Amino acid sequence: MKLSKLVGIRYKENPADAVIDSHIFSIRGGYIKQVSNGIFSLYTPMKKVTAKIEKILREEMDNVDCQEVMFPVVLPASLWEESGRYESVGDELLRFSDRGGSPMVLGMTHEEAAVNLARDYGRTYANYPFSIYQIQTKYRDEARPRAGLIRVREFTMKDAYSFHTSQEDLEKYYDRMANAYFRIFSRAGIPDVISVKSDSGMIGGSVSHEYMLLADCGEDSIVLCDECGYSANMEAADTITDNSASSPRAELVKVHTPDCKTIEEVCSFLGLSVEESCKAVMYQLSSTDEYVIVFLRGDYEVNETKLTNYLGEKVHAADVTPESGIVAGFCGPYNQEAKCRVIYDKSLCGIENLCAGANETDYHYTGLNIKRDIGDVEYIDVSKIQEGGICPCCGKKTVKIRRGIEAGNIFQLGTKYTDSMGMTYTAEDGSIKTPIMGCYGIGVGRLAACVMEAHHDDKGLIWPVTIAPWQVHICCMRVDDKECLDEADRIYNELKKEGIEVIYDDRDVRAGAMFADADLLGVPVRITVGPKALKDGEIELSTRDKSVNCRVKKEEIIKETQNLIEKLTADIETKL
Amino acid sequence: MKLSKLVGIRYKENPADAVIDSHIFSIRGGYIKQVSNGIFSLYTPMKKVTAKIEKILREEMDNVDCQEVMFPVVLPASLWEESGRYESVGDELLRFSDRGGSPMVLGMTHEEAAVNLARDYGRTYANYPFSIYQIQTKYRDEARPRAGLIRVREFTMKDAYSFHTSQEDLEKYYDRMANAYFRIFSRAGIPDVISVKSDSGMIGGSVSHEYMLLADCGEDSIVLCDECGYSANMEAADTITDNSASSPRAELVKVHTPDCKTIEEVCSFLGLSVEESCKAVMYQLSSTDEYVIVFLRGDYEVNETKLTNYLGEKVHAADVTPESGIVAGFCGPYNQEAKCRVIYDKSLCGIENLCAGANETDYHYTGLNIKRDIGDVEYIDVSKIQEGGICPCCGKKTVKIRRGIEAGNIFQLGTKYTDSMGMTYTAEDGSIKTPIMGCYGIGVGRLAACVMEAHHDDKGLIWPVTIAPWQVHICCMRVDDKECLDEADRIYNELKKEGIEVIYDDRDVRAGAMFADADLLGVPVRITVGPKALKDGEIELSTRDKSVNCRVKKEEIIKETQNLIEKLTADIETKL
Repeated sequence: MKLSKLVGIRYKENPADAVIDSHIFSIRGGYIKQVSNGIFSLYTPMKKVTAKIEKILREEMDNVDCQEVMFPVVLPASLWEESGRYESVGDELLRFSDRGGSPMVLGMTHEEAAVNLARDYGRTYANYPFSIYQIQTKYRDEARPRAGLIRVREFTMKDAYSFHTSQEDLEKYYDRMANAYFRIFSRAGIPDVISVKSDSGMIGGSVSHEYMLLADCGEDSIVLCDECGYSANMEAADTITDNSASSPRAELVKVHTPDCKTIEEVCSFLGLSVEESCKAVMYQLSSTDEYVIVFLRGDYEVNETKLTNYLGEKVHAADVTPESGIVAGFCGPYNQEAKCRVIYDKSLCGIENLCAGANETDYHYTGLNIKRDIGDVEYIDVSKIQEGGICPCCGKKTVKIRRGIEAGNIFQLGTKYTDSMGMTYTAEDGSIKTPIMGCYGIGVGRLAACVMEAHHDDKGLIWPVTIAPWQVHICCMRVDDKECLDEADRIYNELKKEGIEVIYDDRDVRAGAMFADADLLGVPVRITVGPKALKDGEIELSTRDKSVNCRVKKEEIIKETQNLIEKLTADIETKL
Repeated sequence: MKLSKLVGIRYKENPADAVIDSHIFSIRGGYIKQVSNGIFSLYTPMKKVTAKIEKILREEMDNVDCQEVMFPVVLPASLWEESGRYESVGDELLRFSDRGGSPMVLGMTHEEAAVNLARDYGRTYANYPFSIYQIQTKYRDEARPRAGLIRVREFTMKDAYSFHTSQEDLEKYYDRMANAYFRIFSRAGIPDVISVKSDSGMIGGSVSHEYMLLADCGEDSIVLCDECGYSANMEAADTITDNSASSPRAELVKVHTPDCKTIEEVCSFLGLSVEESCKAVMYQLSSTDEYVIVFLRGDYEVNETKLTNYLGEKVHAADVTPESGIVAGFCGPYNQEAKCRVIYDKSLCGIENLCAGANETDYHYTGLNIKRDIGDVEYIDVSKIQEGGICPCCGKKTVKIRRGIEAGNIFQLGTKYTDSMGMTYTAEDGSIKTPIMGCYGIGVGRLAACVMEAHHDDKGLIWPVTIAPWQVHICCMRVDDKECLDEADRIYNELKKEGIEVIYDDRDVRAGAMFADADLLGVPVRITVGPKALKDGEIELSTRDKSVNCRVKKEEIIKETQNLIEKLTADIETKL
């Protein structure tokens, strides 16, 4: 294809609303165009990239005996009522009525549709295990879409669903799928994606993992331990606190703490360690507005996902009214008389001598001992693990926290959907049983964005050859020079004949503009046909990542280009 | 793939709600499953069929220099407001609000999205002509989905949009696309699809054609002339009436016509020809409920599409109230005093002596001459052309009317969308101009359904080899016979190694059940491995359409199967 005929234009300037590189370069390179907030059209180069990703996804799904099917985008609400998610999922689920008034939803995930499709086939044990997948458009009504293709409202996803007669069988398949996922990310050019334990969220189930590309622009926090290899999403990492160095018990004393607004200010004023303080964070249940007070160690933060999971429902930051009885800024567990739910975070467990609010303006207690002064309380882990904290796996103080972009996820669902939707099978002994499910997702556009984050420089994208929109970019430096143009034309036609994917820039533009466009587009192999080298009978052959930059005899350019593509492909395959 | 592992089951009985063969066999064969009214999931075999159709579509679009892009399913209403269709399109356009209250629609066609994507690139004449397409999910909120994949609410469509600087250039491309369409239908196994002139409906534009598969179950009526080759959708066929044999003028006389409810009864009672009668059909505008009376020859029917196009808005059958002033059953053009809009159909033009209602219960006029008694009226063509009627092209009384299923359509849009959406380009002379568009659609599932309608018998489907879910179906007749099973296994593995797509039935079921499933699935080539032929060292090789049924030496079965697939493929390609 000739670049001049490629629908779409390239921009020199960064778009005003884009902050991360994949977003910037996908707009500037003419890869995508925003149609609405979090909704994009794809130009031909991005369509070519996603088609190659989809081909890899299909091959790897075939490899794990997963059968391709297709579910609808528009689903009847009744299907989501069967599973209970029509009620339980928030506003991300787009609900609407059809012209007849029947309630419908836009599929944001397809567990219900998968059970609906598979339950007839799954009536007998003899048909298990089996696994199905689709590559289809999904819609999630995100409140805050951001970062180009990273967090969108409409997206194409590969979602797979497996069905099993035992947990062991599910686990075996889960491992096969986990391996397929590493192959997928490697083949797409991001072999350094890591698997982390994750919170299952609204999908449900007990065990789940996310595949994370470590990147400073990522919206997820990932907990890593270099000692033992532990890795988890912060939402799923147990917080372990060592309070063994706590001060000895002391007398409970109410002290005046004027003008101290934060727990740090209180501790500083009283000369106490913040590690022996108890702070209060106030929420309200979204359903009833009932107040929920979380008490936790002064230097910790609440992990709202853990809190929501514990409560079984959503919360929002509290609007503390005078009627609530809560004394904001001075809220503490002792003599707490407000009508509310109280949660003690595990970080407080084992501290003998605490400083805490006295539920009276400008007063705190010191010497508070929860067991002695309040009694036996249940400690719940609802706080965020911290950098340098204790690894939940090996127990060493080795926790590192990094940012990451989620490139995929896998879930052991148990019987959440099969049970609620009444899917059963007749076991070999004649008894009626409920199958166990797993589900496995990769967003196609998100994966493309991850690759762009991992592979670019300040001039543009650097596509891995396996998913590049084209393999070769030909720059004809002088279209007004017949020899130069004829040679570029010849190379273009011969490469096409060899089945190589080529974008050919034969525009009459200056070298700077031509190279800038080539750098921006990021095609991995470049052939530059210029009069200077041609005088020596040579053509320039280079790679976008600058690892190769040489001159080749013009009669060898086709063969050398093929060799280079093979080498770049082999470099990716050796990481499998 | 082994049939026993194929997710989905096959049914012996016809589904209760299915009346047409493609619907019946796609349900019975385990190809599709209804999820909601007009919304289906696709099982693996249908997904394989649609993938092959999509591959053909991509190749043929590439052939006409059409670039693949991808538009969103969910579109902001603002885009449809630009074109005016947010208001003008009826309830088929699914409108809803996102969580922030912004109005959105589900894309049912993507002219607006295409202009949105192309207008930056299309600012200079030098970039024209260009053409883009996508293969994507669409949703049309049909009031009455029917017939399986024929008329659905959610569907996958290939839709292409071309942009031009002159009508001549559009027409040249339109012809290339028309040729690509014939290639697509031929390659999919239905070379007998015909192109008919059509009504452009809500898509708009002046010239459009539909590609029709003639089939008694079709919901479209197609007008054909064997003499001159004229073909059109009934909605687009001009009705020409020969009233040259009309009786001479006579006196206008009011006559008593008691108990005559229909125009036929009146004519019979008065001894007159129905071809010299004027009947009235009453409508109301959907917007204002204003009455519209259509007068037309007694033996004609109103074509509501022509009527709607003429009025520029929708109508519904009238609810004739006493207040309307219309005397139902006796309504005529003379002395018509009801407050309403009156339309004279062209079929009345040239009749000198009419019988018509007298706007008085139990009375009609005879001898009515419109010109003499009413004055000059405008005659509009709003009636349906009739079997045996006059061909609008050659003028002979040769019209045949047949039923057909629309398999695709192409439109010359003119500047309807570019004008309303303000897409312009700078011409070579520096002036600012508006580009001209064409659009071109094929529904993927609809095309599969057309092929199923065209290719089946009473036992099941008969897929053309080019889009069959598999090329070969192996039946192992005796899995308890080691020689038989080993030989079937060997053939299965060798065919797979040769890259041939095989479904292998090695279930322990009786021959009748095994063949019934194979007939239902409709894979074109069948290999039957049974002990009887094996004793002679032979394997049965046959085709689903019964054109081939022979025995082959077992050492030649792979080669013979390959040859047969090549022959079946060549049979389809010779029709290109």
